[in-house]
Amino acid sequence: MATRSEVARRAGVSEATVSRVLNGVGPVREETRKKVMEAARELGYHLNAVAASFARGRSGNLGVVLPHVPKVRLFSTYYFSEILSGIGEAVREGGYGLLLLHRSPSETYDYPSLFHSRRVDACIVLGASDLPEERASIGFAAGQGLPLCLVDHDYKGLQISSVAADHRSGSREAVRHLLAGGSRRIGFLNGSPHYATSRLRLEGYADTMAEAGITLDERLLYQGNYSRKSGYEAAGIVHKDRMAGRVDALFAANDRMAIGVIQGLKELEPRLGHFPVVGCDDSDAARLSDPPLTTVQVPFYDMGRLAAASLLEQLGEGGSAVFQEVLPTSLVVRQSSQPVV
Amino acid sequence: MATRSEVARRAGVSEATVSRVLNGVGPVREETRKKVMEAARELGYHLNAVAASFARGRSGNLGVVLPHVPKVRLFSTYYFSEILSGIGEAVREGGYGLLLLHRSPSETYDYPSLFHSRRVDACIVLGASDLPEERASIGFAAGQGLPLCLVDHDYKGLQISSVAADHRSGSREAVRHLLAGGSRRIGFLNGSPHYATSRLRLEGYADTMAEAGITLDERLLYQGNYSRKSGYEAAGIVHKDRMAGRVDALFAANDRMAIGVIQGLKELEPRLGHFPVVGCDDSDAARLSDPPLTTVQVPFYDMGRLAAASLLEQLGEGGSAVFQEVLPTSLVVRQSSQPVV
Repeated sequence: MATRSEVARRAGVSEATVSRVLNGVGPVREETRKKVMEAARELGYHLNAVAASFARGRSGNLGVVLPHVPKVRLFSTYYFSEILSGIGEAVREGGYGLLLLHRSPSETYDYPSLFHSRRVDACIVLGASDLPEERASIGFAAGQGLPLCLVDHDYKGLQISSVAADHRSGSREAVRHLLAGGSRRIGFLNGSPHYATSRLRLEGYADTMAEAGITLDERLLYQGNYSRKSGYEAAGIVHKDRMAGRVDALFAANDRMAIGVIQGLKELEPRLGHFPVVGCDDSDAARLSDPPLTTVQVPFYDMGRLAAASLLEQLGEGGSAVFQEVLPTSLVVRQSSQPVV
Repeated sequence: MATRSEVARRAGVSEATVSRVLNGVGPVREETRKKVMEAARELGYHLNAVAASFARGRSGNLGVVLPHVPKVRLFSTYYFSEILSGIGEAVREGGYGLLLLHRSPSETYDYPSLFHSRRVDACIVLGASDLPEERASIGFAAGQGLPLCLVDHDYKGLQISSVAADHRSGSREAVRHLLAGGSRRIGFLNGSPHYATSRLRLEGYADTMAEAGITLDERLLYQGNYSRKSGYEAAGIVHKDRMAGRVDALFAANDRMAIGVIQGLKELEPRLGHFPVVGCDDSDAARLSDPPLTTVQVPFYDMGRLAAASLLEQLGEGGSAVFQEVLPTSLVVRQSSQPVV
């Protein structure tokens, strides 16, 4: 049976171009396509991708395993859409397909079958959590040496490739900014504690308060679930604490919750004056909200792109070393954290 | 070789459950998974999905072919993210994988190879345009009877399955609303004319103006490209026309451009008073903008879901009749179209 490199030689193109033509992906000029198809036909190269997968042991697909979050339109959240855009770009450049698969966070996901059935050549896990089932299935797959990468999560004690952001440092900068503005009783509205990001943001907040010599007031740790609505609901408690003089500023673990709080407070206390709020993500919404939101910019797009590009590079080279990257965050200062002049 | 239905019978579960277990997708209880794996092993059922694909002639994947728009993070646009969320939900429910592939709008995409190489069992095309290359490649695939569905596009004279929204009627409602508010010289800011949606929205606008006995002023047809920036840039021309008394309200073909125009006008004419603007989409941004945007709500999520569910249903039944669905739109009235009281 003819090989891909023989087809490439006869057609006078690169092997990558042969792949693109035969897999029907990526931009290829019609003339090039014809040349490759002709060379493949002349050499009797099998065009069936399934057969080709047998020969190469490859599917040409990068898998992305997503959590199923009931009632949430995952692609419509800033977090997932940006990471997927980054992954999509790397995959497009590499001439790969992007296979999206759903898992249920409370079930054991069968990663080994995904690889052994050759549906994917490598796999990115998004929205991984610390739930025991999830840790077990991902840990098992990683232990078998399967090319797998976590985005924005890490499991203490497991050697798994990951690309994350420095959320701890991002939170530090946010809290320092509020302290510099004169706030002392800074509340923290966090998302679900099952995510590593939530843990890191809490640590950054707590460390910085301690540094400033402020004893952590447990009552100022508000709990949301990363939705705008949970922020809107938390506004009721924040408002009471504000009336009681317990809280004088708020750091929220994402923009949606921060905006929810601001909307809720506007309704509860239309005339009460400035209450500094800082969010996390620097999503589109941060620019559109009123007032525009001071927020921690997190390079989600770059994280997705780096995770995918690293895996594809390893596939190309046949390597599978564990890589762990942490990208920097930065604070974007807008009006929500500053008194109106 | 054992079949899937034999495995299902022996395990005492449905064929769909067998598929879910063997493809490693969808929620399955651990106990059920074990039963299926045991039955498959006892019957010597081949677990390799590639081999199974040969036997069944199926990949278990629904393809979605996306345009590559340089510099645009596709998943982060409201339009694509909502449609993909809907597709994702149908695919998840059906136990399918979602294979995303990129095409270049100016190239001939090889749909037949995509099917013949069995990477996908059915395919949805997003962001199709009237460019001749695109029409040719989609028309060719549809002519071969391949299970293909367009979302939000139609090709006059081609019999292709599609799910769209009634954009013409949405535009009518928007323009009637502005007329009812007392505006007569209503401008229309459209996106690229290559998309069927742009054409339909223009028709709805022109029809309604004609109905109201207003001669179409070609100078009030502004051209953008669906980005916020293009709306922001159009604000310069709109402002001049407003100063000259030529325009007294604006309908924009999406929310991002409407918000761009509002932001641009705010900078150019901070004290000039109310200028009614209506957008299209009812995206998150419409609620967050200041003032909140009156806009045409379009059921993108439902469109994606219906397209995917219809294709998967046909796959299940072995049918391939052409279906063409048009979902209704509705006007959501907020402050941007109404004088401040």
